[in-house]
Amino acid sequence: MQVSLITFDQFTDIDLYLLWDLLNRVRVPGWRVSILGTQEQHISQSGLPVATHGVLEETRFADAVLFVSGPRTRELLSDRNWLQRLSLDPKRQLVGSMCSGALLLAALGLLNYGEATTYPTAKEQLESFGVTVVEKPFALHGNVATAAGCLAAQYLAGWVIEKLVNRTWRELVLKSIQPIGEGLSFADAEKLRPLYGKNVDNSP
Amino acid sequence: MQVSLITFDQFTDIDLYLLWDLLNRVRVPGWRVSILGTQEQHISQSGLPVATHGVLEETRFADAVLFVSGPRTRELLSDRNWLQRLSLDPKRQLVGSMCSGALLLAALGLLNYGEATTYPTAKEQLESFGVTVVEKPFALHGNVATAAGCLAAQYLAGWVIEKLVNRTWRELVLKSIQPIGEGLSFADAEKLRPLYGKNVDNSP
Repeated sequence: MQVSLITFDQFTDIDLYLLWDLLNRVRVPGWRVSILGTQEQHISQSGLPVATHGVLEETRFADAVLFVSGPRTRELLSDRNWLQRLSLDPKRQLVGSMCSGALLLAALGLLNYGEATTYPTAKEQLESFGVTVVEKPFALHGNVATAAGCLAAQYLAGWVIEKLVNRTWRELVLKSIQPIGEGLSFADAEKLRPLYGKNVDNSP
Repeated sequence: MQVSLITFDQFTDIDLYLLWDLLNRVRVPGWRVSILGTQEQHISQSGLPVATHGVLEETRFADAVLFVSGPRTRELLSDRNWLQRLSLDPKRQLVGSMCSGALLLAALGLLNYGEATTYPTAKEQLESFGVTVVEKPFALHGNVATAAGCLAAQYLAGWVIEKLVNRTWRELVLKSIQPIGEGLSFADAEKLRPLYGKNVDNSP
């Protein structure tokens, strides 16, 4: 099972890194998460470089393709060269976006039917594609999902994990990042063991 | 105002990146966030390299010093060379930790009085330092704070922003990452403007 995270310069740090961290907590054979882009590294909105694992064309091998967000989505949505490098097929792949990444799904014609969500500052532009924008953290239509508000990455990663692995892994992964006393308790230490293997010292 | 994030190999991705993203949303003159370590880059728990901005000795210039987490904390807590490179003074600095980073604060003698919190898998070891471990997402004693459960990074970053800047910026930054319909609404687009400047397209 392969999950591709699509990134570009000026990406919103947490929209990439929260998906990345959550998806990497899954411990099942053959599970692989990759960051794809057009360069060997991309620079985040805050100026942090991230190394990419491959190019956009590798989306053809992915079981799930998730688009991160950032100001650059407003340019990429009309960059035909960039869009044509992607290989997406919602009939056999899960496809999703964070925040203004929904603009890219709209540009690709993937939001023509059903509802979608996006960051408040991108709502009008998403509506200009004829998309019905709903005030929800997560909107799903078939195999295409949009999530918005950075912490909604939990819904998007959770959806991918449940669809590609199972509900048990979804719940375990999401529990493992909750604040202590607000979704995660000291008594959960033993439950967390599948995430860290035999050595509990291999944990946050 | 300078905030230093202390990192090391095998750091928990989201414990660094959530603090980093939140703290970098502050737009006030002279505000600077740095990732400090012992090498030019450190590799995360999931295998992602992050470039550092400086060395541990630069903590002497910081107004706040926050320790991230990861399995390596269990080795570093008895690494006198590593600990001695840090320059901490809770009388003039805010000092804090995420998850098992609390073990490093304990090793530095900063949790001798008051309560602290940590990740479930590090609770027993933290108690072995004589620390009173409480089941809370955030525990504060004077200028020393511990937060636990990855998403509790919101409490830690919020505390630093409120103490070093003001409560308005704390609330704005934390609001900006909430899920749509769960703390952030489309009607908030205008409120978010100070985060992105004149160009709303410069947003997630």
